[in-house]
Amino acid sequence: MRNRQWVLASRPTGRAEVSNFRLTETEAPAIHEGQVLIKVQYLSLDPYMRGRMDDARSYAAPQPLDTVMIGGTVGEVIESKHDRFQAGDVVVGMGGWQEYFVSDGSGLRTVDTRTVPASVYLGSLGMPGVTAWYGLLRIGKPKSGETVVVSAASGAVGSVVGQLARIHGCRAVGFAGGPAKCDYVVRELGFDACIDYKSDNARDAFKAATPNGVDVVFENVGGAVFDMALARMNAFGRVALCGLIAGYNGQDLALNNVRSILVNRLTIEGFIVSEHADAWPTALAELTGYVASGALKYRETVAVGIESAPNAFIGLLRGENFGKQLVKMV
Amino acid sequence: MRNRQWVLASRPTGRAEVSNFRLTETEAPAIHEGQVLIKVQYLSLDPYMRGRMDDARSYAAPQPLDTVMIGGTVGEVIESKHDRFQAGDVVVGMGGWQEYFVSDGSGLRTVDTRTVPASVYLGSLGMPGVTAWYGLLRIGKPKSGETVVVSAASGAVGSVVGQLARIHGCRAVGFAGGPAKCDYVVRELGFDACIDYKSDNARDAFKAATPNGVDVVFENVGGAVFDMALARMNAFGRVALCGLIAGYNGQDLALNNVRSILVNRLTIEGFIVSEHADAWPTALAELTGYVASGALKYRETVAVGIESAPNAFIGLLRGENFGKQLVKMV
Repeated sequence: MRNRQWVLASRPTGRAEVSNFRLTETEAPAIHEGQVLIKVQYLSLDPYMRGRMDDARSYAAPQPLDTVMIGGTVGEVIESKHDRFQAGDVVVGMGGWQEYFVSDGSGLRTVDTRTVPASVYLGSLGMPGVTAWYGLLRIGKPKSGETVVVSAASGAVGSVVGQLARIHGCRAVGFAGGPAKCDYVVRELGFDACIDYKSDNARDAFKAATPNGVDVVFENVGGAVFDMALARMNAFGRVALCGLIAGYNGQDLALNNVRSILVNRLTIEGFIVSEHADAWPTALAELTGYVASGALKYRETVAVGIESAPNAFIGLLRGENFGKQLVKMV
Repeated sequence: MRNRQWVLASRPTGRAEVSNFRLTETEAPAIHEGQVLIKVQYLSLDPYMRGRMDDARSYAAPQPLDTVMIGGTVGEVIESKHDRFQAGDVVVGMGGWQEYFVSDGSGLRTVDTRTVPASVYLGSLGMPGVTAWYGLLRIGKPKSGETVVVSAASGAVGSVVGQLARIHGCRAVGFAGGPAKCDYVVRELGFDACIDYKSDNARDAFKAATPNGVDVVFENVGGAVFDMALARMNAFGRVALCGLIAGYNGQDLALNNVRSILVNRLTIEGFIVSEHADAWPTALAELTGYVASGALKYRETVAVGIESAPNAFIGLLRGENFGKQLVKMV
């Protein structure tokens, strides 16, 4: 069996390009005692991967050059010499940008695909969902009746944030790029409002959508959208800083409204969900319930074939995806 | 008795100017049952006053035009019809920019000037001292061996922050403007290092002064100094945001290194010490002990005569003061 893999060929200067990746092909490896061989079904593409491509001081080591790109995957165990797994099991893990991988079982989680499609374990019932849950509930601590604002509202994380906010009795206001995403956020996901940050009247529309100010911000984007949210904060507001995608592909964007942090006595907290392992079981149990009941909706953009991964990833950084960005292996 | 008062004559556009204030003169008022008349000895000048001069949404209502400028004072009760006070008592309160004021006793605190000069109750044993104590200990939560960075390190607040950090076993690194202030911060106050933010090699000097990175930032200034501190943060660092004086007299300064908040999983908290009344007794008890033992040193810049208040205040906003800025009434 041939195993196609995307490795990091070079580090971007500014925008990530397809040429930063190289497609290689090897034999799918043989497994030893205590190992499993997994055939990847879906690869998750996520903004954090852009940070790993740089050689900068960060919370994680940079992705080494000429190694398979990191990435979350869901796939099927096709051979097992591990007593916790058997062929046919569907497992979530960090398989990377490739079609097959070998694991000793560490970091692998068997999932139930009888009622929920496998891909959802990379979205609402995976890292993005737990990210939304943790940032909103543990950092944002929303109280019923408060207003929660989330950027990239139609995305894998943002869509869960707003729906959870509604479930907790809050007013949910999103930012998204373009009328199609905003329509989806309001009509399908049930947000109270969604502001097209590309529109000329975004500021006025956001003000109108937050008549009682803003109590919680879940920030995925940074830049002008973050400043707009800060300008509407109520006293003692909370900001969960999850991402700054607007600046990932070039110059970091500044925060102009620092004064709001002081004047409104805000708390801002940056977080990485993988560091809060204690929260995952509770989060996943709650999220599974909401997905099962239909209270938590999701949408996916699926690129087909491992060849498509770099272009799909670059599109994600530009906001071209609609909902969770996946690559389906064929 | 004539009572000279500075009222706010107009709101600044950009820099505060002497012409924004107007000196008026009235009779010192008569007191009624339940009131005291206080002759002000010292007026405290503090950066927050600049915010009150603007007509902007903030945590406190703007200073109304044609009213006596707000300000902390220490003074002597010269007449009392209030059973908690008697003539001769020295009291701290919010007397404002004037020579005499009447109070019904609310917000007045009698202080002991037998061992500590009255003026210190406007500095290390007053609002600035409690601000330092609260921001450092309750928000910064420094652990022994950690590195604490404070801007405006020779000022009324910053000087207490660094000395408290040392008392708690931390490495204390300050930012101050010019070699004289930096010398004082290290030699007199005992900080481990102080960086002259005006010098060309500030960035390199700061890096050398923080070999183990930075765990706690107590921010009074904002702008480039804040960005420098953020660039050196360790994981899970804490930032107590107390002031942004670099931007008070004109355009707000942006924060460029937002990425550090995310990458280093920082917590940033803005605060106003007057909202934490529960902390004051503990803070003042501790600070009083440190001042009495000589562990907590302070320095004052004293302008003489109420006429000098506007110029002294404008100098404070420019960093021309050295330590706590006071106006001594004559």
